[in-house]
Amino acid sequence: MVNIGVIGAGRIGRLHIENLHLLPATVLRAVADINASALETIEQAFSPQYVTSSAEDILHDPEIDAVLICAATSEHISLIDKAIQNKKHIFCEKPISFDIKESRRVVKAAKEAGLVFQIGFNRRFDPSFQQVRMMRLNGQVGTPEMLQIISRDPSPPPMEYVATSGGLFVDMTIHDFDMARYIMGENIAAISVHGGALIDKRFNDYGDIDTAVISLTFESGAVGVIENSRRAVYGYDQRLELFGSNGAATVPNQPTHQVEWWQDDFIKSEKPVHFFLERYQTAFEREIAMFTESVQSGTPAVCTGDDGIAAQTAALAAAQAWKEKKTVYIADVESETIEIS
Amino acid sequence: MVNIGVIGAGRIGRLHIENLHLLPATVLRAVADINASALETIEQAFSPQYVTSSAEDILHDPEIDAVLICAATSEHISLIDKAIQNKKHIFCEKPISFDIKESRRVVKAAKEAGLVFQIGFNRRFDPSFQQVRMMRLNGQVGTPEMLQIISRDPSPPPMEYVATSGGLFVDMTIHDFDMARYIMGENIAAISVHGGALIDKRFNDYGDIDTAVISLTFESGAVGVIENSRRAVYGYDQRLELFGSNGAATVPNQPTHQVEWWQDDFIKSEKPVHFFLERYQTAFEREIAMFTESVQSGTPAVCTGDDGIAAQTAALAAAQAWKEKKTVYIADVESETIEIS
Amino acid sequence: MVNIGVIGAGRIGRLHIENLHLLPATVLRAVADINASALETIEQAFSPQYVTSSAEDILHDPEIDAVLICAATSEHISLIDKAIQNKKHIFCEKPISFDIKESRRVVKAAKEAGLVFQIGFNRRFDPSFQQVRMMRLNGQVGTPEMLQIISRDPSPPPMEYVATSGGLFVDMTIHDFDMARYIMGENIAAISVHGGALIDKRFNDYGDIDTAVISLTFESGAVGVIENSRRAVYGYDQRLELFGSNGAATVPNQPTHQVEWWQDDFIKSEKPVHFFLERYQTAFEREIAMFTESVQSGTPAVCTGDDGIAAQTAALAAAQAWKEKKTVYIADVESETIEIS
Amino acid sequence: MVNIGVIGAGRIGRLHIENLHLLPATVLRAVADINASALETIEQAFSPQYVTSSAEDILHDPEIDAVLICAATSEHISLIDKAIQNKKHIFCEKPISFDIKESRRVVKAAKEAGLVFQIGFNRRFDPSFQQVRMMRLNGQVGTPEMLQIISRDPSPPPMEYVATSGGLFVDMTIHDFDMARYIMGENIAAISVHGGALIDKRFNDYGDIDTAVISLTFESGAVGVIENSRRAVYGYDQRLELFGSNGAATVPNQPTHQVEWWQDDFIKSEKPVHFFLERYQTAFEREIAMFTESVQSGTPAVCTGDDGIAAQTAALAAAQAWKEKKTVYIADVESETIEIS
Repeated sequence: MVNIGVIGAGRIGRLHIENLHLLPATVLRAVADINASALETIEQAFSPQYVTSSAEDILHDPEIDAVLICAATSEHISLIDKAIQNKKHIFCEKPISFDIKESRRVVKAAKEAGLVFQIGFNRRFDPSFQQVRMMRLNGQVGTPEMLQIISRDPSPPPMEYVATSGGLFVDMTIHDFDMARYIMGENIAAISVHGGALIDKRFNDYGDIDTAVISLTFESGAVGVIENSRRAVYGYDQRLELFGSNGAATVPNQPTHQVEWWQDDFIKSEKPVHFFLERYQTAFEREIAMFTESVQSGTPAVCTGDDGIAAQTAALAAAQAWKEKKTVYIADVESETIEIS
Repeated sequence: MVNIGVIGAGRIGRLHIENLHLLPATVLRAVADINASALETIEQAFSPQYVTSSAEDILHDPEIDAVLICAATSEHISLIDKAIQNKKHIFCEKPISFDIKESRRVVKAAKEAGLVFQIGFNRRFDPSFQQVRMMRLNGQVGTPEMLQIISRDPSPPPMEYVATSGGLFVDMTIHDFDMARYIMGENIAAISVHGGALIDKRFNDYGDIDTAVISLTFESGAVGVIENSRRAVYGYDQRLELFGSNGAATVPNQPTHQVEWWQDDFIKSEKPVHFFLERYQTAFEREIAMFTESVQSGTPAVCTGDDGIAAQTAALAAAQAWKEKKTVYIADVESETIEIS
Repeated sequence: MVNIGVIGAGRIGRLHIENLHLLPATVLRAVADINASALETIEQAFSPQYVTSSAEDILHDPEIDAVLICAATSEHISLIDKAIQNKKHIFCEKPISFDIKESRRVVKAAKEAGLVFQIGFNRRFDPSFQQVRMMRLNGQVGTPEMLQIISRDPSPPPMEYVATSGGLFVDMTIHDFDMARYIMGENIAAISVHGGALIDKRFNDYGDIDTAVISLTFESGAVGVIENSRRAVYGYDQRLELFGSNGAATVPNQPTHQVEWWQDDFIKSEKPVHFFLERYQTAFEREIAMFTESVQSGTPAVCTGDDGIAAQTAALAAAQAWKEKKTVYIADVESETIEIS
Repeated sequence: MVNIGVIGAGRIGRLHIENLHLLPATVLRAVADINASALETIEQAFSPQYVTSSAEDILHDPEIDAVLICAATSEHISLIDKAIQNKKHIFCEKPISFDIKESRRVVKAAKEAGLVFQIGFNRRFDPSFQQVRMMRLNGQVGTPEMLQIISRDPSPPPMEYVATSGGLFVDMTIHDFDMARYIMGENIAAISVHGGALIDKRFNDYGDIDTAVISLTFESGAVGVIENSRRAVYGYDQRLELFGSNGAATVPNQPTHQVEWWQDDFIKSEKPVHFFLERYQTAFEREIAMFTESVQSGTPAVCTGDDGIAAQTAALAAAQAWKEKKTVYIADVESETIEIS
């Protein structure tokens, strides 16, 4: 049995707790949050062995094998440091931190301590994207030549969130940068950006944008494009196409249900499922199952701290490309080569 | 808490046990089967309070509120009788029996005893079919004029199964007869059949067929057609279209995943999910959840013993229509009117 | 060069004249109609060598090789008789007549006179339906087991039309009976009907219905179903599925254009093209081109007088099946075997 | 009647001649080509009033109202100059020339001479793309925020063609630059490029590439991306999505026919139609019809010389962006503002 402590009982923490519940060989040992009412709800629904207002209790609990870090990004580094000191395996939500040097330091430390360090790139566990990756690996698309990722949220976050989000690239595109590396099996080499605050001018107040076309060159010379928007009125738009020398693999959106309504004005079908909790439900379940399996059996994590760093580095390069209106080379912002998992 | 006893630990019994496991307010009290190794597997995976080789233990266990009857059809009547005597609520797989008079008797007895009697028409709990029904109820398709149900299995059952199945209409079409009543909200009035043993001549040895077009007239005068086949090489074909004065609602097949492969010969997409366990996974979960809710709260079952009788009666009428090459009127084979739930 | 005379300058006559215009080796010699203004319009747009109020002029014109009979059904037999006497090849709109004996007589006479006699089953020339037929011929669907044809008009005809149409089966289903024979490559053996006047009760005043499910057994034992309606609010519904031992071939509807509109309520796509002129534009062009080619080169017509008789016989059998609520066998209403072209 | 002279009887010249043939108010006066056998074929099939080996004959023929310039790009400027001197309206294939200054000069001269000057951007006449433009104009997509154009050829041209094509941007992307302006109704402001010779290294020998992601910012601040490839094994890939504040409009590929083949391995549907002659058949017909209408009635051309210059300017900017790995602003390479038609 793997004993788990969860730090942070907000939306994403609660989601992981629900999914832990589906796993037979896992014990929800403890949940920490400063919000007492969130804890109470969790306690009633999932009966952890204990709840606490202090993450320290979890980090020092000798019974606990692994921690899920679902707290605010600003807390990540300090929590990770203590988890490493206490020999806890770590699952951490993205981004690792807003300081790439600190991110690199803790990832290195976890590696030296022999701990599993999995970063919360849930989309890697989506069956459709995994299918596309498999089609690349087994040659069904041939040599990859172009990747297209469309990633649009149904509606923009509140401005208070924007203020501390780290900006579009590190908050939202980071998932797409990771997906690009996962699908292609190689690192991003160069990035350009066209974009703007097209939905809401207030994004500019935070030096941020809400809409972007992000062009990529991979190390092999293949190219790619990420289309991001903070608002799609038709819902959560999550599509992907991998184009290669032998064909293409495409992932369309997933509607709530398949029923069509044939009417006197239009043929009507359902919009995509509402947002990430619905679209990536299976992926979230698999993500946490695979983490506990890595902890238990020692198999490597599907996405590692290094993957977190690679995506964060790409986000930094994108921010620079946007600011300077030029193509930014990853090699110019990141001297170390990151291995592809 | 609802205490459940499961009689029969075969494929469908085990499926219900798995789904019971997802329900917080339900206790898996006991499982009965004469197959010891099936029981052992269940015991290890789901820890019922006890297992037994005798259904009697369950039927007489005062702790048990409700039984799931997942045994062979030939056992149903005797098990139902004892369940009624012992005041157990009943969930019974279809068909209730091969003898319509016995079916009527036990359904009536359960009703008089004030017990929940739910029949295992799992497809009623499928979100897509429920959506079509809702679109009829709220007027989105207008007055229903024509219903089309396509229901084809991926491959024919073994001949040993055919020998005791009761024939295509009572074994397979019974689900479609129930679906027709559920979608239309009215009874079937008349039935014609065109068909044959087109896949395997050995069906004829059992007086059975493997392929049929079954035409319907409903009590309102609306018409319908059911297309059945024991084999579709592209997989489990489960489609439905409701056509009315204001438009149509269509349910297509559901593929395993949505990824398309664009190749130099064809654009390729996935076949439908393999078979009923995959296609109706959500429906099976909801079916058993709704049954336990009916037991607990006294809400009426979504499909009742009466629904089981109505579908079985339609199956008998279809068999007669096929034999006599004429349109058979339900009123000529069934004098009592069955209420629509 | 083939010299053509067209008898009847109504909607369908005009359509054929337009399509003749696209054929390099064809001369529009003459057009006859009693409606002077229709003739004038034709004259201005297509410059036939002459127009006339009398079909006789065309039938006796020694320059004319072939006639297109686009007059009222009640005129067909008399026009065909004269065309045969004057050795004109014949293209005749469906049905040949309302009297099956007369239809048989003129088809036989044209055959004996060595004349091309093509019946206006335009749908045979549709590229999609031809593709399905080809997929049957080359084994891509294996042994055919079930055929489904959906054929619904966008809106019911005026009651004056209904009064003289000959009824649903001979006016509308006749196309589907022919399509069934064309796709399957075999004759219909037995027919049952469920239907009614569901759209407009006034159909009953003419002994007619507006909605029908017509079940078929073919001579091989394969089965089929035709779904007919005089009104589909979403437009002209023309679909087909051939299901066999190796797979299925499906023809969906064809929308006006492919643009989708992704909105905040639904994903919206276009309805099918309005009606037969739009849906079968290519088929109408090919139909008349193939007729002139048969006249010129002596190749057999794609659909012959015999095909017209076979479909008309099926329509008669359907009318009887509907009236008597039983399965009607073609062998009981038609002693002669009709060859499949 | 409009009298037309066609200069160049190659593939595209012949296509226009075929389409002229469909227009009632147009006379094919003359066709010029140095290739005698091409002329002979044209003469037999379309009976122009005369054919000639010298374009001069056409340019000086006082009977001719308009010329279609379908000769090699290197001949365009000289032919246009003479057409203007002789007061012929001009339809010219893209690009106007390889020298932007010369292009500007002749467009200006044609404008001053009051002549229609239409550039051969055939895709503007495609019904689907016109529908998307209309959906932008009538507000159905709201304020445009992002445009995506996918444009891939089925297979790369021969290297001899590459040698003189002017490069990917002016040969292929030029159509997409024009489409971008047409759909958005505004000029391109800035361009970045990621790309390479991924299909065939020999493109590099000509300073060319075969694969590109071209990012755009429009004058309004909206963004866009063009995905180009010289080879898609699944065929001619021509898609477009306009994304805005009220929704999105999408144009998928158009398959040869709609028949699906449901098999035991995949659901198979047809690839897109082979290449531009098939995909843009309707567009080519409309293009030439609209040109003759402009000549006849004086209505402005749907795409003008200015549109040709704007697209060519974008191609030049793209070449520079690719070379210098930076975002190039149109304002820096083109001082004059081009009006949007």
